[in-house]
Amino acid sequence: MRQSELFVKTQREDPKEEESVNAKLLIRAGYVDKVMAGVYTLLPLGQRVIKKIEGIIREEMERIGGVEIFMPTLQPAANWEKTGRYEVYDTLFKFKSFFSKSDYVLGPTHEEIVTPLMGKFVFSYKDLPLAVFQIQNKFRDELRSKSGLLRGREFLMKDLYSFHSSEEDLEKFYKRVSSSYGKIFRRVGIGRLTYFTYASGGTFSKYSHEFQTLTSAGEDVIYICNKCRVAVNREIIEDLHGACPECGNKDLREEKAIEVANIFPLKTRFSSAFGLKFAGADGRENLVQMGCYGIGLSRLLGTVVEVAHDDKGIIWPEQIAPFKFHLIELKKGKGRDLYRRLTKAGAEVLYDDREATAGEKFADADLIGIPWRLVVSEKTKNKIEIKKRGESKSKLVNYGDLGRIL
Amino acid sequence: MRQSELFVKTQREDPKEEESVNAKLLIRAGYVDKVMAGVYTLLPLGQRVIKKIEGIIREEMERIGGVEIFMPTLQPAANWEKTGRYEVYDTLFKFKSFFSKSDYVLGPTHEEIVTPLMGKFVFSYKDLPLAVFQIQNKFRDELRSKSGLLRGREFLMKDLYSFHSSEEDLEKFYKRVSSSYGKIFRRVGIGRLTYFTYASGGTFSKYSHEFQTLTSAGEDVIYICNKCRVAVNREIIEDLHGACPECGNKDLREEKAIEVANIFPLKTRFSSAFGLKFAGADGRENLVQMGCYGIGLSRLLGTVVEVAHDDKGIIWPEQIAPFKFHLIELKKGKGRDLYRRLTKAGAEVLYDDREATAGEKFADADLIGIPWRLVVSEKTKNKIEIKKRGESKSKLVNYGDLGRIL
Repeated sequence: MRQSELFVKTQREDPKEEESVNAKLLIRAGYVDKVMAGVYTLLPLGQRVIKKIEGIIREEMERIGGVEIFMPTLQPAANWEKTGRYEVYDTLFKFKSFFSKSDYVLGPTHEEIVTPLMGKFVFSYKDLPLAVFQIQNKFRDELRSKSGLLRGREFLMKDLYSFHSSEEDLEKFYKRVSSSYGKIFRRVGIGRLTYFTYASGGTFSKYSHEFQTLTSAGEDVIYICNKCRVAVNREIIEDLHGACPECGNKDLREEKAIEVANIFPLKTRFSSAFGLKFAGADGRENLVQMGCYGIGLSRLLGTVVEVAHDDKGIIWPEQIAPFKFHLIELKKGKGRDLYRRLTKAGAEVLYDDREATAGEKFADADLIGIPWRLVVSEKTKNKIEIKKRGESKSKLVNYGDLGRIL
Repeated sequence: MRQSELFVKTQREDPKEEESVNAKLLIRAGYVDKVMAGVYTLLPLGQRVIKKIEGIIREEMERIGGVEIFMPTLQPAANWEKTGRYEVYDTLFKFKSFFSKSDYVLGPTHEEIVTPLMGKFVFSYKDLPLAVFQIQNKFRDELRSKSGLLRGREFLMKDLYSFHSSEEDLEKFYKRVSSSYGKIFRRVGIGRLTYFTYASGGTFSKYSHEFQTLTSAGEDVIYICNKCRVAVNREIIEDLHGACPECGNKDLREEKAIEVANIFPLKTRFSSAFGLKFAGADGRENLVQMGCYGIGLSRLLGTVVEVAHDDKGIIWPEQIAPFKFHLIELKKGKGRDLYRRLTKAGAEVLYDDREATAGEKFADADLIGIPWRLVVSEKTKNKIEIKKRGESKSKLVNYGDLGRIL
């Protein structure tokens, strides 16, 4: 893409009214625009990163047998009354249709939709197990929304829901999702910083689990076992008497972290509310066992920026960068041929063909944070100056040398 | 995909409470599930069709220079007060945040977001023209919602917004979008039935234009010029004294149709409300000229079903069918090898590996409407029986013969 065709401009100054690093950088670099507290527009660069994240997650969900569906944002309040969550879910947006007088809810999650849906198709143990997932915007009427993309009133989520004929089968799948999540966070580039974390299971399960990414911007505190790499959320550390639930080790270190995903054995919490049953091989009826597994995509966008930046800007992991190459020409037209060759070879290139000073172009490239910066100028002659974002050394190479990283 | 892994089951009976052909067929065949009036879940098959339509539209939007963004559903009421539409837009969902006490609107369209957004990046004539598009759910508090996917309270739209330094430039781009739309409807498979239609331009433009697809399920009446193929919406036919606005011909025929797209020269309607100005080459400030261009994707899904079905089910145009082949085995395991070969060759195959009678499988295949039905049974031996949906004759072919349509 030619940068001259990208309508977005970078900003030198931090935006007012933003406290978080992720929002400041994402706004300054032109990835998002703030519409109001907790509500952002994804600009072209931000949309590209989100699509990359979405692609990785979709691939891994399909790999474990998830089938994609798309559920509505508008949900009938009646379904939430059925599960008893209408009055107690404290961030629920509630409103009325003027014409139909119906009470609606803006979906913050979709158990109230997916459970009755399955009631239409699940009858026998032969219909189980199954798993469906959705990637779509969800809504929460948050009290405060000051953490940029980390806590939005409107945010993009992937949720997977699974359905089983026994608790053992749920547990088996739960573990499969857990290792799939580990893979997703490695692919997204934050695997090293992300910890499988024991958290409260609420009233119907001993534990749920979270994936927590270490960052000082995190709102959670976790305790990491120095022996087996498992973590514990502060909310249950006392119940565990300060011991790792996997290995019993008491040598844990405290860290601040952000929850990028959570997985939850719902068991029969929702199937009982909606009467979602199946006939077993013996003909007897049983409640379906359920699990739910969320990943916040817009939160992930914010988290990656929190953990991957320096004082000049963002440093994208290659797999989710909006482009692989940032091609900068310091002499008008000098990059055109290289741009054509690279895109023809299938590479994703942001081509800075603007009329601007070298200083402005370099500052923008650092701020935007694309992995490989290519510079062509009078000085580089027939060669290309290549530098990796986050490193200081550049070198001169030939086009052929780019093949290795293409 | 193996049909046994698809959790959805077809229904023999028409669903109650649905009057429209599109909703009846889409529900019976398992493409969508009705959550409440005007609100549907896209099931895996429906999601696949929508993704195909989305892919075609995205490709054509990018071809004319559109850049993709994603705007919020939650919009501040204040922006709608600024354009004077807060009180007069009669299908607006309005509600309040419990915590922030802010007044919100659920976006039925995004002029109130995209215009102030551009105010942050457009300063000079050099920043123009530009065009951004979005593919996302929109919301309308419809009085009635009885036409299935044709008129939802929640629906998927593509909207393109363009920005220009002069009316002439807007007009030029408007024509380009118009022919791009013609191409989209041809690719989606309803080109022959879809008419470029003159409609009211409101108070600030002489005309807007619609793309109307002929179907008895349509809520609009249009008059088609028998000479030049242009149509006129009934709402303005009197103002035109019954004459075609392109060629003056008065030989028009009346038809019922559904509006699948509309394009609108907004001119300065919204740029003046938000003070979106640019400095011209002469240094003088002018209001930006805007156009907006919508296509309803979920409506398109419903429209295609209205125009492409028979008494047995849906007949998908190949380009947007959920799969290309529906492989039916009448003897357990007989299709496995063919399924593997076809998917390896890159073909999209729904493989009916269920334990069911031939009659049930054929009825489901007709209902679901995938273009090519392949049958393997004891009787077909090493050959494959192939039949095109909508045609009655089948023939026996070898695997090699499939190459032609792969």
